[in-house]
Amino acid sequence: MKYGYFDDSKKEYVIIQPDTPLPWINYLGCENYFSLISNTAGGYSFYKDARYRRITRYRYNNVPTDFGGRYLYIRDDDTGEYWSPTWQPIKKELEQYRCRHGLGYTIISSKYRDIGTKIKYFVPLGEDLEIWHVKISNLRNIPVKLSIFSSVEFCLWDALDDATNYQRNLNICEVEIEDNTIFHKSEYRERRNHFSTFTCSEPIGGYDTQRESFLGPYRSWENPVVVESGKSNNSQAFGWAPIGSHHLNLSLDKKESKEIIFILGYHENDPAEKFNPPGSQEVNKKHALKTISQFLNVENTQKAFSKLKTYWECILGKFRVECPDIHTNRMINIWNPYQCLITFNLSRSASYFESGISRGIGFRDSNQDLLGFIILDPKKARERIIDLAATQLENGGVYHQYQPLTKLGNDEIGSEFNDDPLWLILSVSMYLKETGDLQLLDVEIPFENMLGTEKPLIEHLEKCLMYIEKRLGPHRLPLIGRADWNDCLNLNSFSTDPDDSFQTVPIDDHNSAESIFIAALYIIAAREIAEIFQLISKKKKAEYYNKNAELMDLAIREYGWDGEWFLRAYDKFGKKVGSNECKEGKIYIESQGMCIMAGVGTENGMAKKSLNSIKKYLATSHGIMLIQPPYTRYHLNLGEISSYPPGYKENGGIFCHANPWVMIAETILGKGDQAHDYYLRINPSAREEISEIHRCEPYIYSQMIAGKDSLHFGEAKNSWLTGTAAWNYIAITNWILGIRPTHKGLMVSPTIPNNWDNFSVSREFRGVIYHINVQRIAKGNFSTIYVNDQKLNGNIIPIPESNIKSLQIRVEISNDPNNILKIASYT
Amino acid sequence: MKYGYFDDSKKEYVIIQPDTPLPWINYLGCENYFSLISNTAGGYSFYKDARYRRITRYRYNNVPTDFGGRYLYIRDDDTGEYWSPTWQPIKKELEQYRCRHGLGYTIISSKYRDIGTKIKYFVPLGEDLEIWHVKISNLRNIPVKLSIFSSVEFCLWDALDDATNYQRNLNICEVEIEDNTIFHKSEYRERRNHFSTFTCSEPIGGYDTQRESFLGPYRSWENPVVVESGKSNNSQAFGWAPIGSHHLNLSLDKKESKEIIFILGYHENDPAEKFNPPGSQEVNKKHALKTISQFLNVENTQKAFSKLKTYWECILGKFRVECPDIHTNRMINIWNPYQCLITFNLSRSASYFESGISRGIGFRDSNQDLLGFIILDPKKARERIIDLAATQLENGGVYHQYQPLTKLGNDEIGSEFNDDPLWLILSVSMYLKETGDLQLLDVEIPFENMLGTEKPLIEHLEKCLMYIEKRLGPHRLPLIGRADWNDCLNLNSFSTDPDDSFQTVPIDDHNSAESIFIAALYIIAAREIAEIFQLISKKKKAEYYNKNAELMDLAIREYGWDGEWFLRAYDKFGKKVGSNECKEGKIYIESQGMCIMAGVGTENGMAKKSLNSIKKYLATSHGIMLIQPPYTRYHLNLGEISSYPPGYKENGGIFCHANPWVMIAETILGKGDQAHDYYLRINPSAREEISEIHRCEPYIYSQMIAGKDSLHFGEAKNSWLTGTAAWNYIAITNWILGIRPTHKGLMVSPTIPNNWDNFSVSREFRGVIYHINVQRIAKGNFSTIYVNDQKLNGNIIPIPESNIKSLQIRVEISNDPNNILKIASYT
Repeated sequence: MKYGYFDDSKKEYVIIQPDTPLPWINYLGCENYFSLISNTAGGYSFYKDARYRRITRYRYNNVPTDFGGRYLYIRDDDTGEYWSPTWQPIKKELEQYRCRHGLGYTIISSKYRDIGTKIKYFVPLGEDLEIWHVKISNLRNIPVKLSIFSSVEFCLWDALDDATNYQRNLNICEVEIEDNTIFHKSEYRERRNHFSTFTCSEPIGGYDTQRESFLGPYRSWENPVVVESGKSNNSQAFGWAPIGSHHLNLSLDKKESKEIIFILGYHENDPAEKFNPPGSQEVNKKHALKTISQFLNVENTQKAFSKLKTYWECILGKFRVECPDIHTNRMINIWNPYQCLITFNLSRSASYFESGISRGIGFRDSNQDLLGFIILDPKKARERIIDLAATQLENGGVYHQYQPLTKLGNDEIGSEFNDDPLWLILSVSMYLKETGDLQLLDVEIPFENMLGTEKPLIEHLEKCLMYIEKRLGPHRLPLIGRADWNDCLNLNSFSTDPDDSFQTVPIDDHNSAESIFIAALYIIAAREIAEIFQLISKKKKAEYYNKNAELMDLAIREYGWDGEWFLRAYDKFGKKVGSNECKEGKIYIESQGMCIMAGVGTENGMAKKSLNSIKKYLATSHGIMLIQPPYTRYHLNLGEISSYPPGYKENGGIFCHANPWVMIAETILGKGDQAHDYYLRINPSAREEISEIHRCEPYIYSQMIAGKDSLHFGEAKNSWLTGTAAWNYIAITNWILGIRPTHKGLMVSPTIPNNWDNFSVSREFRGVIYHINVQRIAKGNFSTIYVNDQKLNGNIIPIPESNIKSLQIRVEISNDPNNILKIASYT
Repeated sequence: MKYGYFDDSKKEYVIIQPDTPLPWINYLGCENYFSLISNTAGGYSFYKDARYRRITRYRYNNVPTDFGGRYLYIRDDDTGEYWSPTWQPIKKELEQYRCRHGLGYTIISSKYRDIGTKIKYFVPLGEDLEIWHVKISNLRNIPVKLSIFSSVEFCLWDALDDATNYQRNLNICEVEIEDNTIFHKSEYRERRNHFSTFTCSEPIGGYDTQRESFLGPYRSWENPVVVESGKSNNSQAFGWAPIGSHHLNLSLDKKESKEIIFILGYHENDPAEKFNPPGSQEVNKKHALKTISQFLNVENTQKAFSKLKTYWECILGKFRVECPDIHTNRMINIWNPYQCLITFNLSRSASYFESGISRGIGFRDSNQDLLGFIILDPKKARERIIDLAATQLENGGVYHQYQPLTKLGNDEIGSEFNDDPLWLILSVSMYLKETGDLQLLDVEIPFENMLGTEKPLIEHLEKCLMYIEKRLGPHRLPLIGRADWNDCLNLNSFSTDPDDSFQTVPIDDHNSAESIFIAALYIIAAREIAEIFQLISKKKKAEYYNKNAELMDLAIREYGWDGEWFLRAYDKFGKKVGSNECKEGKIYIESQGMCIMAGVGTENGMAKKSLNSIKKYLATSHGIMLIQPPYTRYHLNLGEISSYPPGYKENGGIFCHANPWVMIAETILGKGDQAHDYYLRINPSAREEISEIHRCEPYIYSQMIAGKDSLHFGEAKNSWLTGTAAWNYIAITNWILGIRPTHKGLMVSPTIPNNWDNFSVSREFRGVIYHINVQRIAKGNFSTIYVNDQKLNGNIIPIPESNIKSLQIRVEISNDPNNILKIASYT
């Protein structure tokens, strides 16, 4: 069952029914000001940091679902009837309803008793404010008198404190009202120099700023007393709960329309100019009003919207595909890079599943997000890489998380997630391949953000590898530390106290559990570094790391193979994890994907056996599960993974993030059909038809789909902020379509389904547009490449001369005459 | 305007209108299982620790207010109409509504379309469960078929995690259903050995455990689809949000009634017997079902309720008064000791203003709470004193807070609130006076809970004083550290970052700000210790501390007097705080009350001037404000106090906690009229008539009433968990009525209003019941005492022989022939 449809030409998903299985959301803002907005206008806004600079209040896990947001109320003043043009919060059935989630904007339009409303929400580029561009149309044949009431509920900035510390917070709220503008200025008198504003373009008949005055006692957003009565109370918030609400009186002739602009904004003043008049305690409104006033004008607002559209056209222009599968096209051309940008901006902080207050920016998360983002905006990617490297410790380890406002490592969780450092190598390597900007390697970056400790990035990268090399266990495999990529596999901290976080419970200094996953990741990282040293003519270093990679490869072959698949780990007592010997958790997905990506056993049948086992034991119609069989009881020596009910999350859920590793592995073994089949199983567009089962948005990836052992097999959770976005983007573009950057040029090496006759791609690479047309001549994966009609030796198109702005590439795919495995650097 | 009335004979407050200005709540449970319950059945339950063992979910600051609780739905199956017998959540107007908040129980009764419902909620003594004893009556003249639906929403134990960590929490919920009983067992499979149960005494027609299944999409507690349809879905929660709901089919003949019992319980199993059958993952239900089954029987439930009533009769029997003022009687005989017991149990953790997750147990808080609690239950008080002392550091300082589950000091906030240690002396001294149990002084207690560091309590107490003595500033006054009693007066930590907590921002090692408040508190504590040493025949020690008290008294006279009142402090730069020299915050209440209680200047006019200044500058009809004039701007050198809007909290609010110090001071100067006048201004019963202004419960004290500079002058906030309860109890019983324990016997020294002709008190003291009848012979405060008709020399009745169980005391009050000030130990 579908609840909407893709409008590919407009790059929008159109929701046609407001009561989607879960709220289906979008993000506004891509710089400093961010908003989450659902298909019924629920959600909240914040500036930079979802915890510390929350602009509006939102109640997670609310009853009813998604109750609270940026709401307008329309009241027919002739009859007294009122409704929500966004369905929520009043939920009166609308005669027409459409929500168009576009790239950085959302448009909700509706009709009720022949009053049409269209609201376009977006954040202009370069501004810290959101615009609600409203058009109200009287479709009746008689004039109508309407009241419009706006409403937002302000948050007292620190979202955690706001939701816990009432003995203070019910006392601190302060506002000012000047003309049409409501200034929320709680704590501005003291340590803050920022405030928020809520204004509108039309004269107002009244306002409210005290929530209970607007709602009335024991009432809700569903039936505010002010809306019911048709008259604002002009209430002045002083403590308790601040809101912003305007009342507009609107007389519309028959068939007349009117455009109104509401603006919700965040502003900072120079501390020296906080107050005006100086010496008073009144907010200096000068700069804020100037900024706002620009956009209270329909023309300027439209211009800003066009600019935003252009920005997105440009971002999405980096890689465009036309292939036989509509879901592949749609995700590559629109939604997957869109999601990559959102994950880059938000990390795991604020979604409808991430409350914006519990985690900083993850080191591993962000390095992986970068893989899907670098192509979109290499400049921003470069900055992020430097930020990440600056959280490294001198011993080579890294803080697992850091705070976005301060960029400092998060002491509470610390380091010791032993895979973490390696991911930095992958993101840097991808960046170098994409841009050729080798100077990045020489940038001096401190450790733990401490002045005076600066070293070139390349030294940071070597320390990353050294960190692993110095931490090998009894099987010469890397020690896992607290956990590796699978944060829930806690092999060295045995937690019995339910009040402990699994992530921070102390671990023994003599932790000895080993990870085959890290071993494989090490091989990849070491080879990437070797390639980089080769590039900068440091051959000895290159040899050294290649040699180390080989030793690790040997260790995996010797101790990491279980007969039909790769082991996952050795626990603290040397017992196998993810082995046929185990009663539960016999096979794990992660080590299969990663080992094959690292080339382990691709030549001797291990890889093939591993992939067969995945197909046999882990693959389902909804995607590939993380383990089988799931843990039915708590294993003290394994930790959090065994705490989840079977079929959920890491315990046998379809953890989408790890699926693309298997897709890549399939392409390495030349299995385009299987790779693309796996791709489609979790491709959200391809799952649109079963939205009543999938439940999350059909236009973006979710972190997890419930596995077959769950009561809700096929149901997705934790949409938007997941490494799935980046990795699927890599799997489909770089590996299945096979168009990927290398240090020497753009590689074209598709491994597509056998029934694809052709596809074409336009890709920007180092300033050149590559127009690539691929034709299948015969079954197989062998590419013969013609660059401007010249046949190429091999599959890497050398970087052209600098005056060349575009290249025509023709590719013929046929049977591989040499039957060569496609193993290469994984990225 | 009133929303109810006191039913003094039943010791209940009866609310007659469900939409009170704020939810008016009560507490169930006084041992390990606690519930907060509002007058419309809102609220939540927890076991021991409101953060870590939250049983049901509650949304603070919700829209609509107080939406979520222990709800029953009644559905007329003939018409399909349904309603809430507790008004919330459906809020259909009831034909009759009464909420009776009693001591440890709440009864909500109502009538709708001639269906009567009465629900009695209570927690039986000795049990970890709450009973909802429901009686439904068909008052119609025809039979009726009803459906009853119950509902609670389970919390996933850790209330903070439950409200933030959705990427985990939406996956972990698990339940079992067996017969009538719903078992909420999230995380039981792993590290927990506890679960909750929800059951009922009647056969059920169905159940629900998945919230969204019960409510229906985008619906709320106001219109659950299951209630609307009249049929449960028998849903099995697996992840998402667990609830418990039963469906009962009830056929009632005309005029027939039926009693039903619902039980919500918390249970722990021995870890060795968690599962049954052993080896399975199913909860071992044996012990839980046995416990529950006892109370599914109306007779047993009634017995348990009687037992609870007797418990409260016994507690409240310790001190009973009959005086000319009804508000004084009511508060002393019922509500004030009730609130003292609640503050003792809950500290500042869980109320409708304290979210139960943000603070541990406060050292200063609990020592003050003890002052009002010791008389009620000396045995429990003794345990608490030992717990508190065990959080002391070896340097004499104490952790400002500790966690109730672990009893360990809270590292995050640490120590350095320099008044903290002194409060332990006050509580111990009060305990010794009440009980004569001098052995407590010899109990060996560790420092920081570390084995091997044990020292007798008396040494802990000396370290408390030494901590102050070693920390004197340039005026020989005690250094304030982070803050003293006024947590918001932060004289040594200058905070400019709004993301810092004022309470934990680092302070300079060379903090030099001084507190006159601590100086006065030191005098009191030193004299109390001196008295104790006198008692145990350590005269030198006694002399030493008396001498120290005298030196401190001199320091206050020399540097702590501002001319018309006592200064409050010196800031870090030696500038006066709370002085006529200041532009804002010229006069503070705390140092006035405390200095006079310490006897400073009671003989030379300083005390009198100070009290006159309070009357002139701080007293209002709603109580005495904390400072005047309030700070209109942020003062970096003063901290949080200046962060509040004028008139709120410490910044010129009527901080009720500090009012009784002034009352005591007035009695010391012999001003019974003024003392009792101040008492009545904040006495909640005396404010009942202005409930629409006061807004909080009229039966218990609130922490704060908004001051005259606020927009909401007279409005109370933060009801229930405040030191106000203990201190007002002390002020009225020990000082105005003047009946107070001393080491040598019970003192009787009233300072009552001149227009009181008489009063009588019955007080238990060291196992003897004192029947005290006081008659006024003339104006004045001089007591002539007759013990069993024998005239007593002085006003302390010596401890009688051990076989005497009661004494008749007659007291005549007349003019003081010697005009002696009544200064004595303050407690």
